[in-house]
Amino acid sequence: MSEDKKVVWWFHRVYYAETDAMGVVYYGNYFEWFEQARDNYLRNRGMSYAEVEERGIFLPVTETFCRYLYPAKYGEEIKVKTWIKKVSRASIVFGYEVYNLTSQDKLMTQAETTHACVNKEGKITRIPRWLLEIVS
Amino acid sequence: MSEDKKVVWWFHRVYYAETDAMGVVYYGNYFEWFEQARDNYLRNRGMSYAEVEERGIFLPVTETFCRYLYPAKYGEEIKVKTWIKKVSRASIVFGYEVYNLTSQDKLMTQAETTHACVNKEGKITRIPRWLLEIVS
Amino acid sequence: MSEDKKVVWWFHRVYYAETDAMGVVYYGNYFEWFEQARDNYLRNRGMSYAEVEERGIFLPVTETFCRYLYPAKYGEEIKVKTWIKKVSRASIVFGYEVYNLTSQDKLMTQAETTHACVNKEGKITRIPRWLLEIVS
Amino acid sequence: MSEDKKVVWWFHRVYYAETDAMGVVYYGNYFEWFEQARDNYLRNRGMSYAEVEERGIFLPVTETFCRYLYPAKYGEEIKVKTWIKKVSRASIVFGYEVYNLTSQDKLMTQAETTHACVNKEGKITRIPRWLLEIVS
Repeated sequence: MSEDKKVVWWFHRVYYAETDAMGVVYYGNYFEWFEQARDNYLRNRGMSYAEVEERGIFLPVTETFCRYLYPAKYGEEIKVKTWIKKVSRASIVFGYEVYNLTSQDKLMTQAETTHACVNKEGKITRIPRWLLEIVS
Repeated sequence: MSEDKKVVWWFHRVYYAETDAMGVVYYGNYFEWFEQARDNYLRNRGMSYAEVEERGIFLPVTETFCRYLYPAKYGEEIKVKTWIKKVSRASIVFGYEVYNLTSQDKLMTQAETTHACVNKEGKITRIPRWLLEIVS
Repeated sequence: MSEDKKVVWWFHRVYYAETDAMGVVYYGNYFEWFEQARDNYLRNRGMSYAEVEERGIFLPVTETFCRYLYPAKYGEEIKVKTWIKKVSRASIVFGYEVYNLTSQDKLMTQAETTHACVNKEGKITRIPRWLLEIVS
Repeated sequence: MSEDKKVVWWFHRVYYAETDAMGVVYYGNYFEWFEQARDNYLRNRGMSYAEVEERGIFLPVTETFCRYLYPAKYGEEIKVKTWIKKVSRASIVFGYEVYNLTSQDKLMTQAETTHACVNKEGKITRIPRWLLEIVS
């Protein structure tokens, strides 16, 4: 990640609904955190994802990758670092890192999600200038 | 429940996603079972809920009640008994009982969900004859 | 609700994971909000639920009731009012009301959850004095 | 995938809880399918995951990858192909492909999950012979 990339943090406390009987956050539930962290990123850059959609642009997920280093437990406070890893003509890659505030800021999880840029008709479309300004 | 009420059973095995760090099924996840048990009931009576919607009728939930007697754990096999508790002019009440096959068929949970009968415009509407035949 | 009951508010924005293909929050997902609103209530009164557990007391849910008046949609901001409806020897009833900040503070949902007071051995036990002070 | 790899199929119908307001299955919910498909695979080879745990071996997820080609919708029937992609000294990689039975068996999703082999003390451990026989 280059120095000049904008980074936005999202804070959260683990609750029971997110955990499983192994005592840790269920591996599929991290993606709910990434959705919220991503919206928080866009919002911080000036436009919520709801507003992106209102302008006729949708960003469906086309790929996800997640590496689980250490599990998060009930009641722990975590923070998610979010940034843009890559922007192409019609796709955006978000990067995420989850840190555990309750455990000396230990890095817990690394992930990325790739999104296509799609118009109202569901067709892949070039990222419009107003969105490019937010994600660049 | 009167003798002549039709009863339909839905079978399931508890998986990790449904449990929480207390080691048992999370209290909100039972409602996913009830959705599946309800669709199974309708399907068994001759029409899936997807087909009900295709005919322009929607059955949004207006009330839920659930009593949690014993918790279900990872890997346990359960079965859900589903039946119609009450049908009014424009609403239907489903009843549910969850039994634990792994634990001598013990009764675990009792619940009911109330549904309004709504048309495409979102207006409360009288239950059509074809649906009444299924839920009576 | 009597005038002198303490009320605590929890704020939230609806995200995609919580909604379903009907375009609204899935009926079972409200219980995740109530969990968070409940923890927020206890925390606001001086002790998180995690701390309650650390002291050897558990509050498993024994009953839930929820009335769905109006659905909440993606991106809407909601607030949940939480208060104690009733305290008995070994059980606590929480009350909840969901209001839609995006729609003139309209009342959307009314609910209550009943909790048994249980010790480490899983036995129903009298609510200890330190907890009584929080929930009274 | 080589010809001689054992493949196991898991069948499912999409329900409302799994979808979101975009009208399709939420990207994080696929991992619940993969959990069930994985358990189904092991069960089909002779031992449920619950039994693996009873023998003191745990298989926590360390990495996931998912490519979303086409979205699945409410009511559609899908099937998940599951197989072992790779077995190392102390880790197993499962492969998954989701096909849409409602839409000419179209390939919808490709995924893999990597699991560490861990003992009761939480230490990485060599895959025991009895498990190796199942996953090879």
